[in-house]
Amino acid sequence: MDGRVTEVAHRVNYSETDQMGVVYHARYLVWLDVARCEHLRATGLSYREMEEAGFRLAVSEATLRYRQPARYDDPLRVRCWVREALPRRVTFGYAVEHAEGRLLATATVALLCLDAEFRLSRLPGELLGRLQPTPDPVRL
Amino acid sequence: MDGRVTEVAHRVNYSETDQMGVVYHARYLVWLDVARCEHLRATGLSYREMEEAGFRLAVSEATLRYRQPARYDDPLRVRCWVREALPRRVTFGYAVEHAEGRLLATATVALLCLDAEFRLSRLPGELLGRLQPTPDPVRL
Amino acid sequence: MDGRVTEVAHRVNYSETDQMGVVYHARYLVWLDVARCEHLRATGLSYREMEEAGFRLAVSEATLRYRQPARYDDPLRVRCWVREALPRRVTFGYAVEHAEGRLLATATVALLCLDAEFRLSRLPGELLGRLQPTPDPVRL
Amino acid sequence: MDGRVTEVAHRVNYSETDQMGVVYHARYLVWLDVARCEHLRATGLSYREMEEAGFRLAVSEATLRYRQPARYDDPLRVRCWVREALPRRVTFGYAVEHAEGRLLATATVALLCLDAEFRLSRLPGELLGRLQPTPDPVRL
Repeated sequence: MDGRVTEVAHRVNYSETDQMGVVYHARYLVWLDVARCEHLRATGLSYREMEEAGFRLAVSEATLRYRQPARYDDPLRVRCWVREALPRRVTFGYAVEHAEGRLLATATVALLCLDAEFRLSRLPGELLGRLQPTPDPVRL
Repeated sequence: MDGRVTEVAHRVNYSETDQMGVVYHARYLVWLDVARCEHLRATGLSYREMEEAGFRLAVSEATLRYRQPARYDDPLRVRCWVREALPRRVTFGYAVEHAEGRLLATATVALLCLDAEFRLSRLPGELLGRLQPTPDPVRL
Repeated sequence: MDGRVTEVAHRVNYSETDQMGVVYHARYLVWLDVARCEHLRATGLSYREMEEAGFRLAVSEATLRYRQPARYDDPLRVRCWVREALPRRVTFGYAVEHAEGRLLATATVALLCLDAEFRLSRLPGELLGRLQPTPDPVRL
Repeated sequence: MDGRVTEVAHRVNYSETDQMGVVYHARYLVWLDVARCEHLRATGLSYREMEEAGFRLAVSEATLRYRQPARYDDPLRVRCWVREALPRRVTFGYAVEHAEGRLLATATVALLCLDAEFRLSRLPGELLGRLQPTPDPVRL
């Protein structure tokens, strides 16, 4: 059974722009983070609950491809899905799109599971079972 | 005896600009934070050491006056001094200046002393004694 | 006739927290900016349209009072209203509240109207007429 | 002749941390940007001058590997070098290290040369000639 692709909406705010008149490239990582957290919430366990249960997901790798710029006040949607879920490492895929459909950026982010003392750890089986991979809906 | 006025240098980076072509107004608070930490370090106790000793300084009020814009790649200096030091509350003054001398912004930030459980607390006398107020070197 | 109080919802994301486990104080200015832009949009002229028409609103003063911390994943609402609207200067008031009602912070931000060459300018009468002041709904 | 490896120093500030007690992963991209600008300055043409001459470098791809966390107040150095310099595309390599030597993160960032109207363009030969690639000083 395939996992889900979740989607969050975001309108670009002024703090996210730079003097080139487009969104500064580092801001996309924040949008990916928000999309990832909403994906976890949609699976039934929020990241806040994960931390309270003593687990952390720490970003170990990120790759971003910027295809077209996003601009101030643009309505966007960020789609997020699981690419791979291993006991110690989960990889997410992302597509950032203008609300009208143009693909603006794609990305992957890999996270390691750490315990409360920041040691590499295994995701609880129950959570891991919820992180169903799904084929990439766009070419990354 | 008057306290000191400390000074930190900063060159404006691209992430700090917005599409108006100037520094986004929220970034100044980060510069003030850096200047305040260097002020504490100069008194002999870094903020990191304060936190390790179980104390926190939490911002309770901030006022900022933006006078002239700062721009990408501008070399700046941020001056910082103590305006008032009470056992539970310390207020700092700030001047953000272009390296060539123009005054760009002034500010005040008041911080409350909290203990490790976030309860309002008293600064240790030894630290309080180091936070000597000094008259404002510029009009705020 | 009194002006309106607009409201935007925001869920605190991880990038907004700091190692004290609460929202870093500079982030509030971004929320205020978003709320101000939605206020302008609700009056019938978005800030993007204002800029395209050759006007800018540049922050000249900001005051913030932090009352209770906001934390990761907290659902917030930010209320925004006009306190004073002069041809060259508009002042907004803000209340940041937890979705359950607790008041977390209050603020005021004054903005100057600039033309495309960054000269102090007058807001077009039509826009100024839309910026109806309203009494503060909370004590600032 | 090999190109140079430039180096910038940075001390982690509080705004860069998150509630995990480490630096938030998006902040590294800002450090890389600062290091890249200092690299350009060291070659004899600052990015500000490039923009004034009508050229822009827009990030098209970024890859980051986070190896060890950076923490509040850590003194860091960020090393930067050119990996490949084509007329329309330049790729930089980066190593983020604790001042005591531990490798914290590595990264690559590819940028496209755009003209003042955001069209894909060719770097002026004089600038291109300054961007001498050099072998990676660390394994990326």
